[in-house]
Amino acid sequence: MSTEMTTLPRGASGSFVHPATRDLLERVERRLRSFLKAERDSWAHVDGRAVVPIDALSDMVESGGKRIRPMLCLTGHLAAGGDPEAPGVVEAAAALEMLHVCALIHDDVMDASPQRRGIPTVHEKHSIHHRSRAWQGESRRFGESVAILAGDLALVYSEQLMAAAPPAVIGVWNTLRSELIVGQYMDVAAAAEFSVNPQLSRWIALAKSGHYTIYRPLLLGASLAGRNDLAPAFQEYGETIGEAFQLRDDLLDAFGKSADTGKPTGLDFTQHKMTLLLGWAMQRDDRIRGLITEPGHTTDEVRRHLLDTGVPGDVEQHIADLVERGCKAISEAPIDAVWRDELTAMAKYVAYRNT
Amino acid sequence: MSTEMTTLPRGASGSFVHPATRDLLERVERRLRSFLKAERDSWAHVDGRAVVPIDALSDMVESGGKRIRPMLCLTGHLAAGGDPEAPGVVEAAAALEMLHVCALIHDDVMDASPQRRGIPTVHEKHSIHHRSRAWQGESRRFGESVAILAGDLALVYSEQLMAAAPPAVIGVWNTLRSELIVGQYMDVAAAAEFSVNPQLSRWIALAKSGHYTIYRPLLLGASLAGRNDLAPAFQEYGETIGEAFQLRDDLLDAFGKSADTGKPTGLDFTQHKMTLLLGWAMQRDDRIRGLITEPGHTTDEVRRHLLDTGVPGDVEQHIADLVERGCKAISEAPIDAVWRDELTAMAKYVAYRNT
Repeated sequence: MSTEMTTLPRGASGSFVHPATRDLLERVERRLRSFLKAERDSWAHVDGRAVVPIDALSDMVESGGKRIRPMLCLTGHLAAGGDPEAPGVVEAAAALEMLHVCALIHDDVMDASPQRRGIPTVHEKHSIHHRSRAWQGESRRFGESVAILAGDLALVYSEQLMAAAPPAVIGVWNTLRSELIVGQYMDVAAAAEFSVNPQLSRWIALAKSGHYTIYRPLLLGASLAGRNDLAPAFQEYGETIGEAFQLRDDLLDAFGKSADTGKPTGLDFTQHKMTLLLGWAMQRDDRIRGLITEPGHTTDEVRRHLLDTGVPGDVEQHIADLVERGCKAISEAPIDAVWRDELTAMAKYVAYRNT
Repeated sequence: MSTEMTTLPRGASGSFVHPATRDLLERVERRLRSFLKAERDSWAHVDGRAVVPIDALSDMVESGGKRIRPMLCLTGHLAAGGDPEAPGVVEAAAALEMLHVCALIHDDVMDASPQRRGIPTVHEKHSIHHRSRAWQGESRRFGESVAILAGDLALVYSEQLMAAAPPAVIGVWNTLRSELIVGQYMDVAAAAEFSVNPQLSRWIALAKSGHYTIYRPLLLGASLAGRNDLAPAFQEYGETIGEAFQLRDDLLDAFGKSADTGKPTGLDFTQHKMTLLLGWAMQRDDRIRGLITEPGHTTDEVRRHLLDTGVPGDVEQHIADLVERGCKAISEAPIDAVWRDELTAMAKYVAYRNT
């Protein structure tokens, strides 16, 4: 068991994780690996090439990640009084992570990100491979094609894993996936238009973080235990802590260190992401827009001007308010005190993480 | 009913389609449209932007297509003696078409195809839109991002539709999807490497056409009727007719008219697709390879040299042999004579179509 523990990613092994959740998370890790190994074995005989998209998913799973969505799904299930041995619980949590692998791989293509979790992204790795072999066609197109297909495969695999869960969860699962994709599209569109639209920026944060990352995984876990009555409390918790999560993400991208986050910082600026942070700052100081859209300005210049607006300090205060509201919703939810403490600790971890 | 009939795409309304299949195909069309309309309605209130990925799917569905996979699924079901009113039959056929919409949208990105079914592809349409609005970032990247997300949404929607089918079909459905994606990857890899490897080219044709387009849709339909015993006959039929389908595709791309096919011809040459046709031709005449990989040669030059090799005539003969083998397998299958005739007529349509 001790060697298995080392497979748990750092973020998920924080001291606040309840032993019951931790045990299930270990089983989720093993399920992800056994699933991918079985798929790999079933394709390896066809041709050496056939396993390339599967290996791309394994690389992603092995490279770490915080496993926030599986953790919240399992926590939602246990907090709702669910049986840890109920069929499909481990698979549902694994399905959430596999779906997230799809989202990350496709996201990295859309953002043209060269790195994720300290290693080259799928499209980058395969573009480099294509170039080094002097293959036919455009290297960028080849790398992106591999990433599109690997992401598609992760999406299909997430369905196969979720099929083990009882039909009662299908409503939550359907909403979760389409909201993720529509939310991603809105994010891409807002970045392209780059107009200051705080309502739109907030909706995107709500969809991508509040709902996709927190509320719906918690509710999926609760619905595995037949406890859809927890939806209102989990929704308030998810929407507040999700916004805090997103604001922390914006701050980490703007002011964090690449060595901590495992990916380049300042990407939101160079890619014109209309983040909550930037939306606020632009409303405060209209020079910010010019610094981002006009060529010739460095990330450091943008950073200095953002600090001058005072917005980062306001954002920290807003994060504190959001954490308070989320924790209040949980403190009043009909769940055992131990799970209230757990969710309170998680809220603080998510809102004050440095990675 | 008469106006509904006009919604059926031309390819699927050929005189060989059995009235029972045709009725079900009409219901599949209506299900696709009602599903997309309900999804659109559920998102329209959020923001005008939110429906963009859904509209991309509707455009694709409305633009036609041969509906070969739904048709074969329904034919497989009816030939197996299945009840046309059995739950999930219409949804399963609709799910196959929705999955195909995902495959086409992502394929068009990977192939950089500007047109499909006579209209701009999803990525092309949105690249043009981005450019015309002078939005932030790269127009190519924006268009491709919309297409990646629209394809992901189609994949999710195909799952939602298939969820209405009985659990007995899940094995066929799982294999169908992962084989499609692995097959696509092998196709992309073979095009990049561009080495003459007839074994690899045949496997790709088997996966993409024989299995994905014919055998597995037929088997999915049969398994909806609990008739997995038809697997061997449907496999032989699918593999032979699928190879004939792919060879016809290669011939249409090489020698067809853009006005018939609704997409530019000669794409396999410019994109270095290692098709069965090219594989055969290169084994016969090694100048062909140079004509394709070295710059400065026109599609017409490649065409002339292909004709000189005599390969197109051999391919026509091979198609005839394949059709004969496929029809023999069906003539011996334990199904009613009316469905043997139907599948024989379909084989000829698929192998000798001009679009």
